[in-house]
Amino acid sequence: MTSEAPTRAYRRLSVEERRSQLLDAALELFAHRVPEDVSLDDVAEAAGVSRPLVYRYFPGGKQQLYEAALRSAAEDLEHCFAEPPEGPLTQRLSRALDRYLAFVGEHDAGFSALLQGGSVVGTSRTTAIVDGVRRAAAGHILRHLDVAEPGPRLRMTVRMWITAVEAASLIWLDEDKEPPLDELRDWLVEQFVACLVATAARDAQTAEVVRAALALEPADGPIGTLARQVLTVVGDAAHLL
Amino acid sequence: MTSEAPTRAYRRLSVEERRSQLLDAALELFAHRVPEDVSLDDVAEAAGVSRPLVYRYFPGGKQQLYEAALRSAAEDLEHCFAEPPEGPLTQRLSRALDRYLAFVGEHDAGFSALLQGGSVVGTSRTTAIVDGVRRAAAGHILRHLDVAEPGPRLRMTVRMWITAVEAASLIWLDEDKEPPLDELRDWLVEQFVACLVATAARDAQTAEVVRAALALEPADGPIGTLARQVLTVVGDAAHLL
Repeated sequence: MTSEAPTRAYRRLSVEERRSQLLDAALELFAHRVPEDVSLDDVAEAAGVSRPLVYRYFPGGKQQLYEAALRSAAEDLEHCFAEPPEGPLTQRLSRALDRYLAFVGEHDAGFSALLQGGSVVGTSRTTAIVDGVRRAAAGHILRHLDVAEPGPRLRMTVRMWITAVEAASLIWLDEDKEPPLDELRDWLVEQFVACLVATAARDAQTAEVVRAALALEPADGPIGTLARQVLTVVGDAAHLL
Repeated sequence: MTSEAPTRAYRRLSVEERRSQLLDAALELFAHRVPEDVSLDDVAEAAGVSRPLVYRYFPGGKQQLYEAALRSAAEDLEHCFAEPPEGPLTQRLSRALDRYLAFVGEHDAGFSALLQGGSVVGTSRTTAIVDGVRRAAAGHILRHLDVAEPGPRLRMTVRMWITAVEAASLIWLDEDKEPPLDELRDWLVEQFVACLVATAARDAQTAEVVRAALALEPADGPIGTLARQVLTVVGDAAHLL
């Protein structure tokens, strides 16, 4: 390779393109290794540039690069839950979870390191970015539930489920992605409906949301199947009814 | 105050007692302030001893003291879920949650700072201590469900609920302990039963656990009330059955 080639390659990219190329390389590395095992040399090598060039774009070094990569990943994640407000709730949630779980599967080591905490690059800023994703996801879901002013019980139910989905994702990665993605997705959707129904028993607003959502579910869809299965399980507990 | 008084006070305590006194003082401070706002001078003052004495017991300074206080709090928390294996499951869970939520209420700022991450004293060791509490809680609950070898779906359901309880606790603190403790406790128990029932629809082991648990619940207990309420909410969705 002549010394001219990399120089020409440098010139071909605008500042924004170069920044984005470095971020992509960093994100790829941070996705599959814990932050401790990623060096700026690795990032420079993966992007095919020099270490000083990485520093020129990210003078704060690895910490700054990590936070920028995390912000970029957070934007992708927030988009997972954006879904047109049409059709049964379980279909919308399934599509969102498909995207979310695919993201988790692609960023396995980085996702675990980030959420399990105790990482050398974890700061109040990285925590704030992750919390922003959680808030955005909750906002999307509440919009799908079609309530203008969600009360505290409905909001808490949604946020509890989002945390439960995170926990399930970490366990899923830990257990070599078992059960298969589509089974985990269906199960998480069912858990959400179950949590909503239980909250509906003590909250009028949630009860209204549940009634409206169930009316749109087809009998041969996941909730019809779930409802019939549940009846066979609780059928022996007729003394409770 | 004469200079003799504190010296006599120092002598009166054994090494173990002194250590425990310093830990209690630290835990009290860490419970109500974020770690950033607690200094060793504060701990010394609260315990009525000198700063050098705190350093003699905790040469690693604030970090070491924080981790020791956290370990002591973790032991208390693990005991919350120890409960004799008698009576309906919801009664046992309610008693455990009463203790857990009382603990959360007493250690509000410290609990939030610890679980929200990004704290200056958060390390892989503090993460490991918190994870140990989660594992212990899951172990207790699985023993209450009376299964010798819990399968992956049952384990995941329990761990998802534990994370959801944590999330609910943080929101509860954030919203000035609303709803009241006993209402939150009942709701969390209902959420657990709902999640178990939903998992039972696709997992034979969980179905067996649910059947056994429901058989012990009285008709006028929380699950009887929940079941009848749920029927009125889903009654309009007869097309799903």
